[in-house]
Amino acid sequence: MIRAGIYGVSGYAGFELFRLLRRHPAVALIFAASESGAGSSMAQLFPVTEDFPIISFADAPLDQVDVVFLALPHGVSATVARQALAAGVRVIDLSADFRLKDPGVYARWYKEEHPAPDLLEEAVYGLTEWNRPAIRSARLIANPGCYPTATLLALLPLTRAGAIGPGLIIVDAKSGVSGAGRKPSLTTHFVEVDENLSPYNIGRAHRHLPEIEQILHAFNGALGPLVFSPQLLPVARGILATIYVPLASGWTEGMVRDLLVESYGPEPFVKVLPPGTLATLRHSVGTNLCVLSVTGVPEAGLVILTASIDNLIKGAAGQAVQNLNVMFGLEETAGLL
Amino acid sequence: MIRAGIYGVSGYAGFELFRLLRRHPAVALIFAASESGAGSSMAQLFPVTEDFPIISFADAPLDQVDVVFLALPHGVSATVARQALAAGVRVIDLSADFRLKDPGVYARWYKEEHPAPDLLEEAVYGLTEWNRPAIRSARLIANPGCYPTATLLALLPLTRAGAIGPGLIIVDAKSGVSGAGRKPSLTTHFVEVDENLSPYNIGRAHRHLPEIEQILHAFNGALGPLVFSPQLLPVARGILATIYVPLASGWTEGMVRDLLVESYGPEPFVKVLPPGTLATLRHSVGTNLCVLSVTGVPEAGLVILTASIDNLIKGAAGQAVQNLNVMFGLEETAGLL
Amino acid sequence: MIRAGIYGVSGYAGFELFRLLRRHPAVALIFAASESGAGSSMAQLFPVTEDFPIISFADAPLDQVDVVFLALPHGVSATVARQALAAGVRVIDLSADFRLKDPGVYARWYKEEHPAPDLLEEAVYGLTEWNRPAIRSARLIANPGCYPTATLLALLPLTRAGAIGPGLIIVDAKSGVSGAGRKPSLTTHFVEVDENLSPYNIGRAHRHLPEIEQILHAFNGALGPLVFSPQLLPVARGILATIYVPLASGWTEGMVRDLLVESYGPEPFVKVLPPGTLATLRHSVGTNLCVLSVTGVPEAGLVILTASIDNLIKGAAGQAVQNLNVMFGLEETAGLL
Amino acid sequence: MIRAGIYGVSGYAGFELFRLLRRHPAVALIFAASESGAGSSMAQLFPVTEDFPIISFADAPLDQVDVVFLALPHGVSATVARQALAAGVRVIDLSADFRLKDPGVYARWYKEEHPAPDLLEEAVYGLTEWNRPAIRSARLIANPGCYPTATLLALLPLTRAGAIGPGLIIVDAKSGVSGAGRKPSLTTHFVEVDENLSPYNIGRAHRHLPEIEQILHAFNGALGPLVFSPQLLPVARGILATIYVPLASGWTEGMVRDLLVESYGPEPFVKVLPPGTLATLRHSVGTNLCVLSVTGVPEAGLVILTASIDNLIKGAAGQAVQNLNVMFGLEETAGLL
Repeated sequence: MIRAGIYGVSGYAGFELFRLLRRHPAVALIFAASESGAGSSMAQLFPVTEDFPIISFADAPLDQVDVVFLALPHGVSATVARQALAAGVRVIDLSADFRLKDPGVYARWYKEEHPAPDLLEEAVYGLTEWNRPAIRSARLIANPGCYPTATLLALLPLTRAGAIGPGLIIVDAKSGVSGAGRKPSLTTHFVEVDENLSPYNIGRAHRHLPEIEQILHAFNGALGPLVFSPQLLPVARGILATIYVPLASGWTEGMVRDLLVESYGPEPFVKVLPPGTLATLRHSVGTNLCVLSVTGVPEAGLVILTASIDNLIKGAAGQAVQNLNVMFGLEETAGLL
Repeated sequence: MIRAGIYGVSGYAGFELFRLLRRHPAVALIFAASESGAGSSMAQLFPVTEDFPIISFADAPLDQVDVVFLALPHGVSATVARQALAAGVRVIDLSADFRLKDPGVYARWYKEEHPAPDLLEEAVYGLTEWNRPAIRSARLIANPGCYPTATLLALLPLTRAGAIGPGLIIVDAKSGVSGAGRKPSLTTHFVEVDENLSPYNIGRAHRHLPEIEQILHAFNGALGPLVFSPQLLPVARGILATIYVPLASGWTEGMVRDLLVESYGPEPFVKVLPPGTLATLRHSVGTNLCVLSVTGVPEAGLVILTASIDNLIKGAAGQAVQNLNVMFGLEETAGLL
Repeated sequence: MIRAGIYGVSGYAGFELFRLLRRHPAVALIFAASESGAGSSMAQLFPVTEDFPIISFADAPLDQVDVVFLALPHGVSATVARQALAAGVRVIDLSADFRLKDPGVYARWYKEEHPAPDLLEEAVYGLTEWNRPAIRSARLIANPGCYPTATLLALLPLTRAGAIGPGLIIVDAKSGVSGAGRKPSLTTHFVEVDENLSPYNIGRAHRHLPEIEQILHAFNGALGPLVFSPQLLPVARGILATIYVPLASGWTEGMVRDLLVESYGPEPFVKVLPPGTLATLRHSVGTNLCVLSVTGVPEAGLVILTASIDNLIKGAAGQAVQNLNVMFGLEETAGLL
Repeated sequence: MIRAGIYGVSGYAGFELFRLLRRHPAVALIFAASESGAGSSMAQLFPVTEDFPIISFADAPLDQVDVVFLALPHGVSATVARQALAAGVRVIDLSADFRLKDPGVYARWYKEEHPAPDLLEEAVYGLTEWNRPAIRSARLIANPGCYPTATLLALLPLTRAGAIGPGLIIVDAKSGVSGAGRKPSLTTHFVEVDENLSPYNIGRAHRHLPEIEQILHAFNGALGPLVFSPQLLPVARGILATIYVPLASGWTEGMVRDLLVESYGPEPFVKVLPPGTLATLRHSVGTNLCVLSVTGVPEAGLVILTASIDNLIKGAAGQAVQNLNVMFGLEETAGLL
């Protein structure tokens, strides 16, 4: 049994991790920690959950675990990661602290100095389907952001294959409210969200933009700037990204779909829909799937990719568990079906 | 023109008052005050609202108004009310501070001493349809709570007519989230409310219970205890109260409906539905209406009253404006159609 | 492996059965039938479902199965049940056809002659927790209605123990829209349901009333008439029943909670919440649980039971699978955790 | 008083027309017609509506009205329009029948011959802000589609001013469910829409695409092909279009905003938001406003326009009334504030 701990168990991603790990056949959850929830139990924070105690960070028995998951705010995460690594514990970090390779880029987007620049080099970006060899041996995983997961799973096959032509890539993305976290704010107040749709940080203003571009440019440095428009949906969970991609000469809708099917054929958690069917939120919510569909617009030299994930599962806790499975040589679907 | 001011304009009830008063043909809104919003403008707090300045309480020009509306927390409200009354300004208070006549009852339910017991006697309960003579000459109106408004408009005709038999009156009430206010909390977080229904303070534990009973018992001191079960609905606005009433001997569904029709016949803001039609939230939301329906259960000696209101309009700001209209001799529907 | 078939797989309950049976470790799903969907596949009707063929009723290979589930309209169900029984196949019927023991009562509520009165006597009411010995050997199970499941699981311990005093039992029940079926109608149109709450068939007018009373009266023929008020919630799934019960002399909230805890102590699918916590929809949706809470109202001689279930799982397909597990001697939780 | 009639009053747009016309100070509603609703009354079809009779088309007194509104399916509308015009009655048609000038284009997109090609030439496209002189004297108005209204109000100032550079214009549009009409279907079933987001007819496949392009190309024939992606939101009302526009050389966000402000400065129903504020659904729903915001993406040579309207008001019935006001020389805001 792999012995695991969770830091930040009182948020939505932390709770999702808790649920996944408690039913994982090869994982023993040794502790669940939360500074705000310390002293209470999971059953007190979340309805109909088993009565698992919540401890403080200081009480976390790092000597009894093989791996910890960090579902913490950026900045906080790096400090806990350093402690865990020092104790010989592998780390899967769901925050943004180790996603950007360049501490200068981090400082620009997160408005503070990077808290652990010396750890950046060894951090491995945990987009499972695209990084298995490095994940297998990693001590420190930077679990991808929710929007980047959906966007990159759609775009990377085209990027690698040279299917993307000159022109802008536009990602019009819509997310459920759990992506904004469990901390109450006017932004997440029911009355403000209900019957509404709110764009925010559109263009090139959202922190997930440099994360997406860093990965895309690693495959093709010549790609132009991305445009990324996040929007808040009146639903609890799920991301739907509608992605407009200029095609390189000679590429067609059919070729793009074939490429995706071939790229992800054996993958258990990426599904490519047949012609005429479009991915919706419903396709993925509640699962660790990323569901993709392809629509050609030949008059415009364009293909529209639609990518659907559950932001808390494939976009956070589910992908983190998938990475754990790879890191410890388990069946990759263990605990995720 | 009646010159009016609003205290507490940054909450949902305060904003609803602002909208109603700005389109009221006989009211000039002189000021809109909010401690948290002072210095900004309505357009900054609420989308597509005109650019009306928000001032602090200290800056409110009490000498330039005839009446003020208080959309404030209980406790705070009484202090502002006293200032306004001292300045010769009439007060319509939407808080709970002047609804309960007995300061001991207030202390028991609100867990603090009553902030202005000397003002209780002259305060007039502003359930418009039932209290017009006193409202007309009142200096200080205690605007009813949202649940009490729906419940009392349904029950008072039966109480007065002696139609209620021995046995329990059970009020199973459901409310939209705006009733919980605009201050963010886990209770009003979209993800917690969405796809959920949550009972709270059921039985005899909600502060609106003594308010309802005080009025009912004024009409019939022999009525037994009320049971009141509020529940939080995943909608923004509206209250639906399903009220189970034991009938006095000889009463039937038809007689109860006739009684309601007769009681409210000329009323512009109370509608009684015909046989076979049940009041739903949709009937009232967005209006100052209270919509009532009657279903007999002869095998059980019972009648079920269903009462629907918009909690922010008839249950708060709309009824407050209706009271203003009565107080100043205006057409009662002015600004409310 | 138990070999099973589903009739009526294109509705919400049928699809839920499909999902549960496909992951059931001891069941082989031999066929999925639907008259309207015959010739297509599950993947065509429901997003991200495996490509399981849908056949017509005529093509269903009854000789290859041990048991069939009927998720069909009443009237239709009885005919298919007779065919299956004649072929030596055990039947779990999710329709209303075999719930009411008296064909006269059926005719009165369903406005047609009972289609198979000769089968009524042997039909076993499948409220699993209360009827295991009969279920074990049954050829024909009448799976309970969704509202009756929630209501009876709450009330039966009190009924059996004599805890219910004279007076009315009032069930104010709220249900998500999937309970109204997948067939489009104005009642289930998004725009009509959204931001609304609609009572329907309240009092003693809903077909689930005689079903509930039949079972209650089998335990205590002296209980008075039930009042039952169903209401349509703007959510997809879940039932919350708020049940007002007059207590027999000497009974208290604590005694009722102890009684429930004792009655359901070892049950895997019934949870009784601790004092101060109220059951919400969220407690049960997505699970086969019935979650119960108890609130005493001593001034009124009353206890309020709150019962929460997922109408498609514990209220339909989940309980049907639970019954299958009992019928075939499997672990009762098999396929349901 | 202008005497008006409505055909198709039982749908959502028809009902919205009914509400607007009944409170319009200069309009007398002479009749409300619906083939499916004939013989009943508005109060029977819609909750808390006045008891206005619904007549059949055959009974509509065309000799008693000055103008009729057609809220009918395409194909049906043209026939009624011809009858009304023959009777000397002016027509405001909310269907698609007279929007496309070329009957060949109509046949291609609507899969049937145009029902009245001889009337196409005189039909005036009723995008009020852009076509007042022609609307003033028109006998036959083609009221714009909902998506085209939002899209064109955002794009036309830029088109006219030459602000759009070479490259694709991408319209990622999201609509509430009332846009799909009141006729029940699986697409509009609450359970299918709730917690979902569904793209449909994306790319160049939706019937509103040729309507938008026809108008854009009338201003600038050199504009490239438009890409248009409609998506169904889990809300009742409202359209939010996120529009990606390549800028002509020299243009900036500030210049585009200034252009919009200047273009629409005196307009009562178009609002341009200040820098840093993005249009949301909430900005327009319940009003006849189109609310616009501008976000520059200089690195991409792009501007993002966000346009928000209420699909049933500015996108249908409200704009139709606005056109009526222009046609009959009334105050343009009459009945719309």
